[in-house]
Amino acid sequence: MRVLGVDPGLRNMGWGVIDAMPGRITHVANGVCHSDGDNLGERLLSLYNQLIEVIDAWAPETAAIEQTFVNKDAVGTLKLGQARGVALMTLAQAGLPVGEYAPNAVKKTVVGVGHAAKDQVDYMVRLQLPGVKLNGPDATDALAIAMCHAHQSRGGRGLEQALARAKG
Amino acid sequence: MRVLGVDPGLRNMGWGVIDAMPGRITHVANGVCHSDGDNLGERLLSLYNQLIEVIDAWAPETAAIEQTFVNKDAVGTLKLGQARGVALMTLAQAGLPVGEYAPNAVKKTVVGVGHAAKDQVDYMVRLQLPGVKLNGPDATDALAIAMCHAHQSRGGRGLEQALARAKG
Repeated sequence: MRVLGVDPGLRNMGWGVIDAMPGRITHVANGVCHSDGDNLGERLLSLYNQLIEVIDAWAPETAAIEQTFVNKDAVGTLKLGQARGVALMTLAQAGLPVGEYAPNAVKKTVVGVGHAAKDQVDYMVRLQLPGVKLNGPDATDALAIAMCHAHQSRGGRGLEQALARAKG
Repeated sequence: MRVLGVDPGLRNMGWGVIDAMPGRITHVANGVCHSDGDNLGERLLSLYNQLIEVIDAWAPETAAIEQTFVNKDAVGTLKLGQARGVALMTLAQAGLPVGEYAPNAVKKTVVGVGHAAKDQVDYMVRLQLPGVKLNGPDATDALAIAMCHAHQSRGGRGLEQALARAKG
């Protein structure tokens, strides 16, 4: 089962693709979509187009995205929300079932604790995907989200069950 | 110049189309896109598809959208942001230059005061678009946003100048 993880952001949208088989995961690709354009609409459109390219290139069967952390920075929440909305719409348009995970759930699954530091996540992603070349922290986070999705469902049939739950 | 106004929302996305000529505006159409789907991605996708249908049906040359009011309800801000992001992306994909107006700017232009009540906006939209049949408050707000865009630029050449500014 090929999993696409997405770490949504307006400036940088991280993505990571892994193959999840029962009991093991392997790295496929990772990168970052950088928004480009003179205004917000064009920037969101560039993220949409780049995410479609990623989906076309790597043909994931399922996707996972980070749940947005709603904080006191309302302007930041709004920017992130706009980018996340475009990402969710693009994944739905591609027909991918989408799992959503809170940042702490991702960290807890990948590192073992919910309040892990960034470098712990980085370390564990490298450990579990030997030889991976990480294209920056947003791509690392996206791989962690994909790994969380795979681990939560323990690969194979478990993953399909999780997808059925996510769909239902 | 045909103007599409959009009042973004996740549950209901209002839209209104007017023709703006120097010194006068006429109503073309108005309505509401209702999001439909089992999950957030599908709901956003249904808004995207419906907004494309509106653009295809009425062929606007420019668009205007309300600036999101960031308030203390962070969860609401996030939901609205996700819908607004999809709307902005869709308008950009259709090649429409987009003007953004704060709610108070829309009210001030259409009613004359920034803190006008909903029913005042409703009254002035009906007054300026005689015989219009309004498809609910979200469609009314969308028409008001389109009218604000047209009035701000005073039709014809003025509108083109405004669009050039919005693009630049």
